[in-house]
Amino acid sequence: MSVLIAGTVALDSIHTTSQIHNELLGGSAAYAGMAAALSGAGVQLCAIVGTDFPEAHRTLLTSRGINLENVDVVEGRTFRWTGRYHDDMNHRETLDVSIDVLEKFNPRLTVDAASAKVVLLANMSPDNQLDVLNQLTARPFVIADSMDLWINIARVRLEELMKRVDLFVINEDEARIFMDERNLVTAGHRLREMGPKYVVVKKGEHGALLFGPGGFFTTCAYPLQKVSDPTGAGDTFAGGMAGYLASLGPAEITFADLARSVVYGSVLASFTCEEFGVKRLGMLTAGEAAGRLAEFRSYTTF
Amino acid sequence: MSVLIAGTVALDSIHTTSQIHNELLGGSAAYAGMAAALSGAGVQLCAIVGTDFPEAHRTLLTSRGINLENVDVVEGRTFRWTGRYHDDMNHRETLDVSIDVLEKFNPRLTVDAASAKVVLLANMSPDNQLDVLNQLTARPFVIADSMDLWINIARVRLEELMKRVDLFVINEDEARIFMDERNLVTAGHRLREMGPKYVVVKKGEHGALLFGPGGFFTTCAYPLQKVSDPTGAGDTFAGGMAGYLASLGPAEITFADLARSVVYGSVLASFTCEEFGVKRLGMLTAGEAAGRLAEFRSYTTF
Repeated sequence: MSVLIAGTVALDSIHTTSQIHNELLGGSAAYAGMAAALSGAGVQLCAIVGTDFPEAHRTLLTSRGINLENVDVVEGRTFRWTGRYHDDMNHRETLDVSIDVLEKFNPRLTVDAASAKVVLLANMSPDNQLDVLNQLTARPFVIADSMDLWINIARVRLEELMKRVDLFVINEDEARIFMDERNLVTAGHRLREMGPKYVVVKKGEHGALLFGPGGFFTTCAYPLQKVSDPTGAGDTFAGGMAGYLASLGPAEITFADLARSVVYGSVLASFTCEEFGVKRLGMLTAGEAAGRLAEFRSYTTF
Repeated sequence: MSVLIAGTVALDSIHTTSQIHNELLGGSAAYAGMAAALSGAGVQLCAIVGTDFPEAHRTLLTSRGINLENVDVVEGRTFRWTGRYHDDMNHRETLDVSIDVLEKFNPRLTVDAASAKVVLLANMSPDNQLDVLNQLTARPFVIADSMDLWINIARVRLEELMKRVDLFVINEDEARIFMDERNLVTAGHRLREMGPKYVVVKKGEHGALLFGPGGFFTTCAYPLQKVSDPTGAGDTFAGGMAGYLASLGPAEITFADLARSVVYGSVLASFTCEEFGVKRLGMLTAGEAAGRLAEFRSYTTF
């Protein structure tokens, strides 16, 4: 089945304690789209870039089978983000953000994109997410991701969005802030009470929690020895989930399907962390992903 | 099969943001012994207490089927520990330690205790652990736990111990300090190179990692909504592992056995966190433990 991924496409500059990489392909939709494409589902990306967006980045996306018809190119500079990781890669500091063309984003979906069966509203403003949601025509399974920024400055719109999505994905720190609750199990249940049928709380290197009607699932993450750059891991995770769910065909999505999609998304995210930006994801094969999934299963079976 | 648990028996005073409890039964051997006893294995405790040790605590231990023949009672005050937890229960502050009779600890095992088939050298000084180890007569499966204090002040003796045990258990912060390595997978492999056939890195609410020859296993922890007091969770975990392994009978312990013991120990530790001190563990039934283990399996199956 087809997947629509709406979000940001960015040029990321990333500083770690040992390296600096400038103007890498980044943004929630870029990571999520490349992750979703791995499952073989037809991926449509909805985003906006400036006229300065490098052709090499565009070529990488299309080479992964991603349809860019819904990526607007407008006069101006592409959205840029600069961040820094310290020794503890679980936390990062934003050094600079240049919104630029993102301010003009006014998503208008093609008929094909609007009829996708699985939709990921990747991290971007709730206004843009709602705008995409309002154009959907095929009663899709809708996943929404977000971030602390929107919890802080656009909470009402975010809550409006949550009432209308099937699955809401959020990371642990954000879940705690959003629900003003330290305990993640309690926070997860409370998030569900805000509307979404399912909630996933992402815990980075510690895995994820899935909450649903009458069901709970938890998984650890694939244990990495080398973490070069965790940027985009959460977007990869959500995109991996969307791609996995789209690969299942038209039957109704079950809790067990979602649990498997969480593990699959988490395994894809582990690849993203191994190299800077989308480098590892951009060369990942479905066979490698399946191999690591099998390895993860053997690591966790008791 | 029989289990010998050697460690400390203490009187713990525990402060959290909402409660203070004074002179609770505590110490590594108390928690580990009660956890090990749940599996139905005959548990012998080896420790030292002062003449002030409350009869009620002694009664609780014996009521759980724990043999106290190897618990010395000597003139003086029982070892006392006072600690405080803040909002983040993953870290605690030691407010006071009174070693008292612990300084006189000179473990001398009975013939029965010396011939145990599974031995847990729970957290105490490496000198005491080696002293117990030197008295063992039945080629047992030996587990050793430790803490940051001994890494800092008794590293050479701890390293000597590690060469002679089958399984070394350590928490994540201590593993990082000990190996001067942030990555836990790398730290776990390096710890194995120091001697023990198996290493477990405990990650508290995030579960545990198990390293063995040619094998790796990881599990998350049972997700708790209420954490009253995590004191003793690590000791409960190690004791639960020892009890589980002892319940298996005389066949050689496999990596799969150890993986299951890690999950079982982790599930028992979750009970310990629910109430102050050994309160929850002291009333836990094998049926409740089995029920939560089954629940955990359903939460993690994909």
